[in-house]
Amino acid sequence: MSGHKTWTAALIVIGDEILSGRTEDKNIAQVARWLNGQGIRLQEVRVVPDVEEAIVEAVQALGSAYDHVITTGGIGPTHDDITIDSVAKAFGVPVIVDERARAILQSHYDARGVELTESRLRMARIPEGADLIDNPTSGAPGVKIGNVHILAGVPNIAAAMLESLNGKLQGGAPVASVTIRAHAAESEVAGLLKEVQDQFPSVSIGSYPFYREGGGFGADFVVRSDDVDLANRCAEELRKRLQASGVELIETA
Amino acid sequence: MSGHKTWTAALIVIGDEILSGRTEDKNIAQVARWLNGQGIRLQEVRVVPDVEEAIVEAVQALGSAYDHVITTGGIGPTHDDITIDSVAKAFGVPVIVDERARAILQSHYDARGVELTESRLRMARIPEGADLIDNPTSGAPGVKIGNVHILAGVPNIAAAMLESLNGKLQGGAPVASVTIRAHAAESEVAGLLKEVQDQFPSVSIGSYPFYREGGGFGADFVVRSDDVDLANRCAEELRKRLQASGVELIETA
Repeated sequence: MSGHKTWTAALIVIGDEILSGRTEDKNIAQVARWLNGQGIRLQEVRVVPDVEEAIVEAVQALGSAYDHVITTGGIGPTHDDITIDSVAKAFGVPVIVDERARAILQSHYDARGVELTESRLRMARIPEGADLIDNPTSGAPGVKIGNVHILAGVPNIAAAMLESLNGKLQGGAPVASVTIRAHAAESEVAGLLKEVQDQFPSVSIGSYPFYREGGGFGADFVVRSDDVDLANRCAEELRKRLQASGVELIETA
Repeated sequence: MSGHKTWTAALIVIGDEILSGRTEDKNIAQVARWLNGQGIRLQEVRVVPDVEEAIVEAVQALGSAYDHVITTGGIGPTHDDITIDSVAKAFGVPVIVDERARAILQSHYDARGVELTESRLRMARIPEGADLIDNPTSGAPGVKIGNVHILAGVPNIAAAMLESLNGKLQGGAPVASVTIRAHAAESEVAGLLKEVQDQFPSVSIGSYPFYREGGGFGADFVVRSDDVDLANRCAEELRKRLQASGVELIETA
């Protein structure tokens, strides 16, 4: 790495529906890509059940280990939505009804001629001292407390909340990534890859085999670095070495 | 719960490609569903990078907290495949070339007229004392050591390895799950749901809103229990209460 700080984050995906296999998670990939764009590296993900103790433990462990934490899931109006209470507990603060959030919900439901019931008002509850994250999609806001950002679990609502967080989390330069796609069995070029990795120790080179319907196969070699020049030089070297050893490269978009 | 033991598992997804958002994980959902079928509950997932220390820490923490651990990813022939070495380190044993695995690879590559190179032989390396997990798809076996089961990251290969583990992990009865789909905003029925949950404290009731293209919306209420009778009774009560409050139920398959 160059001398600058690498900004890190962890994601906590909260929900029995992910752990039961009922729902396929869509938030890991979209949060990962959003963080890349903010110059922050996602270093760890935990998926935990709708159990207070598990959420508290994950928030405390990851909140102290990484610069930023994002959570998805468990902020709706029903009894199994316990993220707010659990995060408040992790920070040792009470849960309050936030007047800003109440006003947002009131105007959201007023516009639809729907009553702001006690259940819906649950979505105005936040840990004391927390801030709101704008939710242009469905009214009920996300919540920020300390370095923890609490987002909805429904992927398009989570995406809208991420968008309203653009530029607001401290990060560095976006992570540069160059992909080289090749008609090569990764086992054929493993030695060569390792040599280039050893030559560029601060760059990360990943090797990801793919299989196509009908028997075609190959691998993507992905070069990643905070330093775009270094990533490009490493990728150039790798391309040269692959072609010199007779590997056919495939154009990627 | 009834008096019997609930068997638990954790999954460790290993790979920079998931944390960078390059690859969308497919293993969490398939491992979760497979575990359900074995009568084992997936209690936690961690996604960790291709970093030895991170893998060792996850294996040790989760291996002692849960009955079973499954890992996916990082067992191929390239320099970034460090799962075997990391798990061996977590168990404090050396890595050896396993003669059974070597024979499997030899015959796999012989059949294809391909040489068993040093890189490919990396896939015969296992922690000393470990057993193999059959891989009918692509030759290179998975590995079992203690309560840790090391699978490939490529989803169809992981699926084949899970199939060869059918019935081999100690579990209980499959988790029973009943889904009730309704044309209801979950905030409309949150109070009712909580009352039924309080009436059946040992059953888990999840509420999962959905939105359809074109504006339709509703929620799935999922009742889960080790005890199929109890799950059915709870679901029946919930159905009755929803209908009594005027909610329209939707037939599900």
